Amino acid sequence: MGDVFITENFLLQSDTAVRLYHEYAKELPIIDYHCHLPPQQIAEDHRFQNLTQIWLYGDHYKWRAMRAAGVAERYCTGNATDREKFQKWAETVPQTLRNPLYHWTHLELKRPFGISDRLLNPETAEGIWNECNEKLAQDQFSCRGILRQMKVVLVCTTDDPTDHLDHHAALAADRGFPVRVLPTFRPDKGMAIENPEAFRAWVDRLAVASNLEIKDFRGYLEAIRRRHDFFHRMGCRLSDHGVETLYAEDYTDSEIDAIFRQAIRGERADRSQAARFKSAMLYELALLDFDKGWTQQFHIGAMRNNNTRYFRAIGPDTGFDSIGDWPLAAPLSRFLDRLDRDQRLTRTILYNLNPSDNDVVATMVGNFQDGSMPGKMQFGSGWWFLDQKHGMESQLNSLSNQGLLSRFVGMLTDSRSFLSYTRHEYFRRILSNLLGTEIERGLLPRDLDLVGTMVQDICYYNAAGYFGFDLPGMAGPGPDGDSG
Amino acid sequence: MGDVFITENFLLQSDTAVRLYHEYAKELPIIDYHCHLPPQQIAEDHRFQNLTQIWLYGDHYKWRAMRAAGVAERYCTGNATDREKFQKWAETVPQTLRNPLYHWTHLELKRPFGISDRLLNPETAEGIWNECNEKLAQDQFSCRGILRQMKVVLVCTTDDPTDHLDHHAALAADRGFPVRVLPTFRPDKGMAIENPEAFRAWVDRLAVASNLEIKDFRGYLEAIRRRHDFFHRMGCRLSDHGVETLYAEDYTDSEIDAIFRQAIRGERADRSQAARFKSAMLYELALLDFDKGWTQQFHIGAMRNNNTRYFRAIGPDTGFDSIGDWPLAAPLSRFLDRLDRDQRLTRTILYNLNPSDNDVVATMVGNFQDGSMPGKMQFGSGWWFLDQKHGMESQLNSLSNQGLLSRFVGMLTDSRSFLSYTRHEYFRRILSNLLGTEIERGLLPRDLDLVGTMVQDICYYNAAGYFGFDLPGMAGPGPDGDSG
Amino acid sequence: MGDVFITENFLLQSDTAVRLYHEYAKELPIIDYHCHLPPQQIAEDHRFQNLTQIWLYGDHYKWRAMRAAGVAERYCTGNATDREKFQKWAETVPQTLRNPLYHWTHLELKRPFGISDRLLNPETAEGIWNECNEKLAQDQFSCRGILRQMKVVLVCTTDDPTDHLDHHAALAADRGFPVRVLPTFRPDKGMAIENPEAFRAWVDRLAVASNLEIKDFRGYLEAIRRRHDFFHRMGCRLSDHGVETLYAEDYTDSEIDAIFRQAIRGERADRSQAARFKSAMLYELALLDFDKGWTQQFHIGAMRNNNTRYFRAIGPDTGFDSIGDWPLAAPLSRFLDRLDRDQRLTRTILYNLNPSDNDVVATMVGNFQDGSMPGKMQFGSGWWFLDQKHGMESQLNSLSNQGLLSRFVGMLTDSRSFLSYTRHEYFRRILSNLLGTEIERGLLPRDLDLVGTMVQDICYYNAAGYFGFDLPGMAGPGPDGDSG
Repeated sequence: MGDVFITENFLLQSDTAVRLYHEYAKELPIIDYHCHLPPQQIAEDHRFQNLTQIWLYGDHYKWRAMRAAGVAERYCTGNATDREKFQKWAETVPQTLRNPLYHWTHLELKRPFGISDRLLNPETAEGIWNECNEKLAQDQFSCRGILRQMKVVLVCTTDDPTDHLDHHAALAADRGFPVRVLPTFRPDKGMAIENPEAFRAWVDRLAVASNLEIKDFRGYLEAIRRRHDFFHRMGCRLSDHGVETLYAEDYTDSEIDAIFRQAIRGERADRSQAARFKSAMLYELALLDFDKGWTQQFHIGAMRNNNTRYFRAIGPDTGFDSIGDWPLAAPLSRFLDRLDRDQRLTRTILYNLNPSDNDVVATMVGNFQDGSMPGKMQFGSGWWFLDQKHGMESQLNSLSNQGLLSRFVGMLTDSRSFLSYTRHEYFRRILSNLLGTEIERGLLPRDLDLVGTMVQDICYYNAAGYFGFDLPGMAGPGPDGDSG
Repeated sequence: MGDVFITENFLLQSDTAVRLYHEYAKELPIIDYHCHLPPQQIAEDHRFQNLTQIWLYGDHYKWRAMRAAGVAERYCTGNATDREKFQKWAETVPQTLRNPLYHWTHLELKRPFGISDRLLNPETAEGIWNECNEKLAQDQFSCRGILRQMKVVLVCTTDDPTDHLDHHAALAADRGFPVRVLPTFRPDKGMAIENPEAFRAWVDRLAVASNLEIKDFRGYLEAIRRRHDFFHRMGCRLSDHGVETLYAEDYTDSEIDAIFRQAIRGERADRSQAARFKSAMLYELALLDFDKGWTQQFHIGAMRNNNTRYFRAIGPDTGFDSIGDWPLAAPLSRFLDRLDRDQRLTRTILYNLNPSDNDVVATMVGNFQDGSMPGKMQFGSGWWFLDQKHGMESQLNSLSNQGLLSRFVGMLTDSRSFLSYTRHEYFRRILSNLLGTEIERGLLPRDLDLVGTMVQDICYYNAAGYFGFDLPGMAGPGPDGDSG
Repeated sequence: MGDVFITENFLLQSDTAVRLYHEYAKELPIIDYHCHLPPQQIAEDHRFQNLTQIWLYGDHYKWRAMRAAGVAERYCTGNATDREKFQKWAETVPQTLRNPLYHWTHLELKRPFGISDRLLNPETAEGIWNECNEKLAQDQFSCRGILRQMKVVLVCTTDDPTDHLDHHAALAADRGFPVRVLPTFRPDKGMAIENPEAFRAWVDRLAVASNLEIKDFRGYLEAIRRRHDFFHRMGCRLSDHGVETLYAEDYTDSEIDAIFRQAIRGERADRSQAARFKSAMLYELALLDFDKGWTQQFHIGAMRNNNTRYFRAIGPDTGFDSIGDWPLAAPLSRFLDRLDRDQRLTRTILYNLNPSDNDVVATMVGNFQDGSMPGKMQFGSGWWFLDQKHGMESQLNSLSNQGLLSRFVGMLTDSRSFLSYTRHEYFRRILSNLLGTEIERGLLPRDLDLVGTMVQDICYYNAAGYFGFDLPGMAGPGPDGDSG
């Protein structure tokens, strides 16, 4: 049967958009330089028992939509059966029209599941449930099978500095699996000094992992540096930080040492102390990244855990976060300048969550482009609540107007799900459509190779060259054997 | 003669948009769940003597445009004749091209007045003046006549808690008038502690209305509760608050009591005291609404009375207000969470005035959707300065991206004018156009019933079900006899 | 050869847009009421030796793009040859696709250079270099030649109050040059009290220029007033201020006097003192403007000199500035109200740099429209980072929705370059396209004269009437002999 919604030219609203996507973008492999896939599931080549497990477990986007549709918690994070949960999701889907979930859902049913002749709704739920579950039992639908199907060549997971990275080691040793799976250094817990118990527990884990006794701030940094070294040896080339806003307060070493000692004694830092401590941490971590030539990433602007009732019941990352509205520009400028002043600012990607700040961030990035390499400072792709067509277009527009779109390292999934790889397809269609439509309107020159090359750079080659991964064939000028 | 501007397919830019509007949206009745119509004029079935009285009196949108066009105050709020004022307005209209006033003006001339063969300008003014005045003398153009013509089935006015609601009582008793006219509880004056004289006067009126002596904060709350009970008995199901930002400071009962006593002694609260007092009031009022199952509304973000010279000359609500740029997210989260924590958060609609905050508000709403009912938390329609095509589309887009458009309770007039009911038509056309165009672009499935049902829900059925009005036929699944 | 990119109908996406531009907008002369052209170069009718000198020298927009493309500083502001610099620019141009530089570059090559059969890139660089340099040697391409070619009738430069204005005097005396070149009073250095040495040096220059000994704040103001008088005699009718946000703190005269004396003694003002001093200065300067019937301009929101390393190496205005995110509304309201209260608020143009504040600024403007003249308060055109298609459309939309587009005084170059005059063409095309497309969609009446007259007013006549320049023929209702 024909495609009822996700057609071959989905999102491509002009002939030139169609050509850009199909002739330039579609066949490129995927570098997923930031995601939250569990390395264990890749290492063990996990198979999901049913569609609910791979699609709804852990997906707070879907839970949030279900709650807004009036679905009880039992069917989101509770003890309903997997089949019951799926039915509730199928009931919710038609109510998500115009929400990105509606597009994502049908993109994912089409790829990898091959279902595009039906929309998901309560009537089609049973058939889709059975069909997908059958496929999930096949080799092509194991974790590794899906990555292969989706032409993923590299995945950067997101990892705590105290993590053993055994799964990454196992994957690196496995010559039969062609996808590179690298860790990312994400030290958020090492900065969260407001909660002294959790912080202390993390410092203890760090002491074990680094095989160092940690008594003061210098020792703390030394332990972190050892883990940074270890991550580097394991192939890590990126760090990542989730922050409400950047921290760039003035501080003295002795102040920070005192705040640290107080925290590991169990005393809570006040607001000003926490800000100074985080300022010191972000600076020191940035120096480590600079020394090793890593790329540092900042995910800025989430306001987390707004709902106390649900936080107590089911914990963090369950769908109760939103967009903050703090000032960004001054601390961001100060943080970057402090590093740049001594020429110790490494490659940096800023991901912004409040779309009203897109131009602030896009112009801030420009303040620290120093001619040392193309696109050193990056305004990252639309993140979380902005990871949808409007959000992506808004980021692409701000980046274009305030900087060089042509140097953009492009899309990433930022996802916990193995089914999210059509997010790259989504991005490529949106990018091709934006540019193709502008060619047809005379806003860009009618030179398909000029624009098509830019599309390919953004979809693959810029990322391939930017991060310093030593992937085979990645320095090359074109897709060669990889692209169809 | 033919329509020169407001044609049958005004704003409908694709065939599918045309079908969605004409086949699904157009004929639905109107629930105007928030407006500022004077109940007395409905009760007395007031007739306006001329077009200036129904159109320009009290319309600060028009005054503001006239001042920007260089029209002297005499023709706005001053003592020029009604005919002179109308002429100045007619001179201003062509200068409002691209302002919503240009659309509204011609929509209102077409419906209810039936004039669509001319644009309003100085040359056509005399003819339009005469033709409209003639109509205003007819039964169909009395206050009630207009409501009937426009298919309004329910109106919620906006009322002070000290109001006697006699007009509502009279209307409820009048079996011959089918439009339900319900009060809304708007206690802004009971929070405005910065001006102790006005506050004290209000407390005195409240004491009379509630038949209680008010000596302390507990007594004050008790008096307000009695009025809340009374409003409930009169059919009220909504409260409304106009706030710059939400208030959610920490406070103790004894502090609030002291601040209250001081205020009724005539002492002015300082900034911090006022913020704590308002925090307590909003919380206590929210509990009252929760106890009765009302919907609470918050109109957030107006910066009022910026022009001292005009405020002194002609008072508030005369066209000297604008959009504020305060932080919203933190206090809003804190306010809602404080209620939700104890499961005492009632249905809530947040209307946002600064379009840059649309995504902040749209995502905040999602933090408190708890699965207890569909669309419990609502991001309200574009308000005041945003009540125009761009503003509505921006709200619809944020809501769609961050939540469930399908559960939206839709449009309201928020108007003081009986001529504003084409605002619902305007909204329905904009909504139909947005969705119809996306169907044609393949962004939504080509399933007119799926999308058309959503249009009908947003235009009528969601509101019919959401607020708990017990209107006849409102629980039904479709328009039945009502729609053509 | 045909136009490969900048065609006759560039940016005009509908037939009506084409007609509006070609029949109404195109031939109007240019009033450039705000720019940064060096008056000396006009007075001396300077000729540029090559394309790099007229196009790249001093152009921090281009440097910024080059740095983002990985071009070393040597080719931006350093000592590479002009030809080398041009080559690096030509290599960068294809990387600026979707950045306004790509449009500007090809607009400027077409007008005045007549090159539109090629895109600029490394391959075409040599030919374009030679062809443009040849033209630059011709009379038509001297500074005055270019102004004449571009139909500029009036230029307002931007000048320090201590400037002698000798070049303006020479130009005024030159009857053979028809373009009026007037100064603008820009007293930013007289407010920059944070840097006492630079401030003191400026006060010393002011003392010389005004022939007054300056010992206290009153004396300071008197000296400024004398320069204001002098500028007025020299034809100046506008002031301009670059501010992060408006300043409107409370202060007393004696406080300000003490802060001033302290500054000229070499003591640095603290943050609060600086804010009060600037509040006093802005107020006093606004009174001077009011007394002479000038228009005051405020360029709001730039966050300057973010990069210390480059600031130390190459100074300010070199491409290291970005968009700030400070609150604007409260101080802006307070500043304007303080003047309006005493009816001493002169015509005012607010230029806003953070697009998220467009509606805040557009509605603020409306608070002080007082009917004394049409469009007294202006929301200025998209500035700096917003001086591009998205930014201009966003400003036009906010202005339209919140005020009267028809009264807009329109475009200005704000540029240091004699090649920027196609920026007016760019604006006129964008405006014509916006309105023409809305006519075709039925959003505006199909009345080309109504809309075309508005286009002409915005492109020329509003500015001609607004500022009080006594240009010949400027009070007239139409283009007459000027337009083709």
